[in-house]
Order: sequence, then structure tokens, then C-alpha cells
Amino acid sequence: MIKLIALYRNPSDTAEFDKHYFDVHVPLIRKFPGLRRLEVTRVTGAPIGEAKFHLMAEMYFDTKDGMDAALASQEGKAVMRDIMSFAADVITVFHGESD
Amino acid sequence: MIKLIALYRNPSDTAEFDKHYFDVHVPLIRKFPGLRRLEVTRVTGAPIGEAKFHLMAEMYFDTKDGMDAALASQEGKAVMRDIMSFAADVITVFHGESD
Repeated sequence: MIKLIALYRNPSDTAEFDKHYFDVHVPLIRKFPGLRRLEVTRVTGAPIGEAKFHLMAEMYFDTKDGMDAALASQEGKAVMRDIMSFAADVITVFHGESD
Repeated sequence: MIKLIALYRNPSDTAEFDKHYFDVHVPLIRKFPGLRRLEVTRVTGAPIGEAKFHLMAEMYFDTKDGMDAALASQEGKAVMRDIMSFAADVITVFHGESD
């Protein structure tokens, strides 16, 4: 499958970030056309040193075309707008093929 | 579940990295005591700009204690030694709780 991965570095205000993320952002992600699965991981630490990430979201799609269509859709644009409003400075997004 | 996440930035020699990763490293990971699932993602790009990561491995365990025990085991030490031999400069490791 193809998955879109959003990795969030530690935000300045964790409580505020989490409230927006779970109350506002996740419901927007769930509207992605063709989304097969969403897995959200709350980062709890690192085996060595400190984790510099706070959260990771993995959004699974059947195909790359399906993912591209979701990103280009109205729902995808709403997700992007929301990211810009609360996480532009801490997010890294990439995609990949998982086995 | 708890998962251990290994994120690899782009290596200098991708072909050499992949050969070692899939031929040597993955078989070592699969020996982790208590490993429930391994998901390897080959990064294929980013929606905006270029992806700075090459590969991500997610290792699922039932509990944090199980993950800690796996890391502390002989098999875990072999995995760590192997990482140091081929990926010390490109790896970031953290763990988290997924829904």
C-alpha cells in the first residue's frame, strides 16, 4: 500500500497542539476520499537521548493515484489549510510504499 | 500497541544501503524477541519539495516492557551493532503508542 506520513516535531505548546490535532485535524483527515486507514502514533521517547518528534500520522491509500487525488480534493485542501494554521513550523510530510 | 520507529535519512549510496538493509539488517530485526510485526516503508517522495528520508521501519510490540526487553536482549544488541556499522549517520530512532 501507499501511505502518506506526517511527522510532527515537538510543538511549543503540547496541550494546545493536541487539542487542535485530535478535535479539529483528525476529523478533517478522516474525510480524505479513498483513505483506507489512519494510524496515529503518540511519541513516547527514544531508546537513546530524547525524541525530537511529538506525533506521527500514517494515512494509507490503495494506490499513489488515489493518494494524489485525495490531496488534490477539496477535503485534501481543507487538511492542508488546517496544517498551515497550527503546525506549519513542526510538520514534515512524505510518502512511501509499505510491504 | 507500542512501536519502535527507525527513520533513515537519504544515505550516500542508496543501492549499497538497501543491499545491507534488506539482506543483513531485516533478518536481524526479525529475531527481536516479542516482535509482533515489522512494517518497512520505502519512501517514494513528498507532496511538497523532496523527501529527506529514504526508509522507515516500524517494529510493533505488545508492551513497552516487551520492547525494552527486546532492545536489551542479545538479538537487540546485534541489531544495534549492525546499525552502527552501516547507518549510524542517517538513523533516528524513537518509539510511541499507536491506536
